[in-house]
Amino acid sequence: MKKYAEMSKQELEDEIVQLKAQYKKFQEMDLNLNMARGKPCREQLDLSMGLMDALNSEADLSCEDGTDCRNYGVLTGIDEAKVLIGAMMENKPENIIIYGNSSLNVMYDTVSRAYTHGIMGNTPWCKLDKVKFLCPVPGYDRHFAITEYFGIEMINVDMTPEGPDMDKVEELVSSDESIKGIWCVPKYSNPQGYSYSDDTVRRFARLKPAAKDFRIFWDNAYGIHHLYDNNQDYLIEILEECKKAGNPDLVYKFASTSKITFPGSGIAALATSLNNLDDIKAQLTNQTIGHDKVNQLRHVRFFGDINGMKAHMRKHAEIIRPKFEAVLEILDRDLTPCGIGDWTKPNGGYFISFDAPEGCAKAIVDRAKKAGVTMTNAGATYPYKKDPHDSNIRIAPTYPSLPDLRTAMDIFTVCVRLTAATKMLAEIAE
Amino acid sequence: MKKYAEMSKQELEDEIVQLKAQYKKFQEMDLNLNMARGKPCREQLDLSMGLMDALNSEADLSCEDGTDCRNYGVLTGIDEAKVLIGAMMENKPENIIIYGNSSLNVMYDTVSRAYTHGIMGNTPWCKLDKVKFLCPVPGYDRHFAITEYFGIEMINVDMTPEGPDMDKVEELVSSDESIKGIWCVPKYSNPQGYSYSDDTVRRFARLKPAAKDFRIFWDNAYGIHHLYDNNQDYLIEILEECKKAGNPDLVYKFASTSKITFPGSGIAALATSLNNLDDIKAQLTNQTIGHDKVNQLRHVRFFGDINGMKAHMRKHAEIIRPKFEAVLEILDRDLTPCGIGDWTKPNGGYFISFDAPEGCAKAIVDRAKKAGVTMTNAGATYPYKKDPHDSNIRIAPTYPSLPDLRTAMDIFTVCVRLTAATKMLAEIAE
Repeated sequence: MKKYAEMSKQELEDEIVQLKAQYKKFQEMDLNLNMARGKPCREQLDLSMGLMDALNSEADLSCEDGTDCRNYGVLTGIDEAKVLIGAMMENKPENIIIYGNSSLNVMYDTVSRAYTHGIMGNTPWCKLDKVKFLCPVPGYDRHFAITEYFGIEMINVDMTPEGPDMDKVEELVSSDESIKGIWCVPKYSNPQGYSYSDDTVRRFARLKPAAKDFRIFWDNAYGIHHLYDNNQDYLIEILEECKKAGNPDLVYKFASTSKITFPGSGIAALATSLNNLDDIKAQLTNQTIGHDKVNQLRHVRFFGDINGMKAHMRKHAEIIRPKFEAVLEILDRDLTPCGIGDWTKPNGGYFISFDAPEGCAKAIVDRAKKAGVTMTNAGATYPYKKDPHDSNIRIAPTYPSLPDLRTAMDIFTVCVRLTAATKMLAEIAE
Repeated sequence: MKKYAEMSKQELEDEIVQLKAQYKKFQEMDLNLNMARGKPCREQLDLSMGLMDALNSEADLSCEDGTDCRNYGVLTGIDEAKVLIGAMMENKPENIIIYGNSSLNVMYDTVSRAYTHGIMGNTPWCKLDKVKFLCPVPGYDRHFAITEYFGIEMINVDMTPEGPDMDKVEELVSSDESIKGIWCVPKYSNPQGYSYSDDTVRRFARLKPAAKDFRIFWDNAYGIHHLYDNNQDYLIEILEECKKAGNPDLVYKFASTSKITFPGSGIAALATSLNNLDDIKAQLTNQTIGHDKVNQLRHVRFFGDINGMKAHMRKHAEIIRPKFEAVLEILDRDLTPCGIGDWTKPNGGYFISFDAPEGCAKAIVDRAKKAGVTMTNAGATYPYKKDPHDSNIRIAPTYPSLPDLRTAMDIFTVCVRLTAATKMLAEIAE
């Protein structure tokens, strides 16, 4: 097959006729497939049903230190949960607060607290004329939604396979006091599946922010979410690196078990310096008496330790790896011959990032929708939902069954080709 | 025995000598008893162990509408939890949001949201020079801690057995636009155990606030927490009453299962008008994808319906009623003859409110502490921890065992008498 760029007007017209016929067939199938969100599938959820037996009515619901998990108290989480989640996050238990069921909620609260009360004695952000955040793009829509909600101006910084463009990050952070934070998904990034290089992490730890209350919002959502046993990304631990660099308070690190056990019924955590923790605890003590200790204990009893958790993650990988491979196989099969599109090939996480020819993403997603395939909205991976190139589409392979996923991808690539060919034909015609 | 007020100097001196001897004996017992917080005791927690069996690895964790509770989604809570908690709160399911484990957290977030974004289009409180809250006193220390944390000026309003002084509330709320809220525990109030009269609730619903964004923070923490089968307080349902009065958006109502199942591992909820709900959901969608649906389902499966919950509450009452009765018996036995102190005799809730002679509360609590009995700090029941009369002490009878409680109360009344007698002697001497 010829690449589209090399096709004549007639060849493109013929291609479009043939693609339209395929597309029509798909439409007639009246499908309803969803690749929009990074949701685990049923088989993944089934892996954690043992969690429901980890505690029963005969169980002793007390901690090793005797604390009765059923009663009030323990603001920052039970010790054994800190040990388990500490191992997962590669941080010391004493640097950790265990929260409720949602790390997104922890991030929201972290921004909200900075907005209402300021960070470590600095002016509350609500009292400032202008607060800005750096947003590596494409990135995670729910991060951007939080900062947008607080009226924080978001500045795009391009992502590379090594992480954010650090020249740009350093330049902006060191020169503008109104820049107070940066959103990062440092490992198996959302949506690319990139992991920050050693150099990137080291440069993050050595930032010289103009703002004393600048913080890195380090959302390590996919820290142990590998797809392969042997081909695993590695990330330098940021808290330790910040400490080494003399910037111990520079980072808030977030994680949860949402994509390990049950989304919405897991436990979330924050790891940061002792100074930051004191600052946070002064607020937290007004917000709650404590989070769900029974659920913390349930997770500890279910996993035992980090080895139990890692063994569990291998089972997840076995389920979702074929799905990632199917997406990549179909993209390669259908699009490489046409020379259309670019996409990432991650070793972990929940997404594949697809870049369509400029100006095509919205039309592709609309076309797919009309054939029964729901993708993440085009633009969603950018602040204010504005992809300046109208190019990026996030593919979430985990939720559909493998046959459904293959069908959805068959449709997707037809939509990509049809949209690209139509655009190229129009450009020739001009 | 003579009342202290009728005693001569010599009689008071003799009394003090005898009380000091008793106090010394108690000190020598080296006790460690706690009546500080409204915590359920072990036997109460044991009542809910069945909750741990309500879901197991064989259970179908899907809702009646097919929603898989294990996965992401459902921002405002699963339908069957809204039905159950709606029955508990006496509100329609559609007026309810089910949250995480802590109604305190919901109240904090409600104040925080008003502070950062304003209520229904009104100016965010952080942009105002002055925001004030009315605080019926004595009241709940954790309410006051939230408003203090946000720099909200707190104005004391006296409580009566019918509820807050409504003449005062009406006068202040209608004349001062900076008054944005009032903290209420309308049923079995903390710490008195008072329940608002019909007239009080009707007047609340008919307030004419100067501030458009004034809201009643109606913390119905003890809605079904009766001590007796026959002698139960009744409260007019406030949302319905506000609607009748043409003030549908006036109230945020809070509740939780914290003192029904496990504190810290229950479910919390907010009930309010559809307008307020829309306002809240616009924020909530940025804060979280959803709360713990598995725990919501666990509670629904455990209780079945409101009748199951009410039967469960009768078991709580059987455990804690003798404790309340013991406190009242010992107060009456030891203090009525001396004519010292006033206290409440609640039909439900978690506390008894004790008023010592003016200027004695702090000394009494200190004395009790030194004899191994921890009470809620004197002053804690007032904003800024300042009891203008240094008189109120909150007694929390539920947590200690009955024998421990009796011992603690024996010590407490000795401390009250010793402190009062000493003060009276000093006054005679002056």
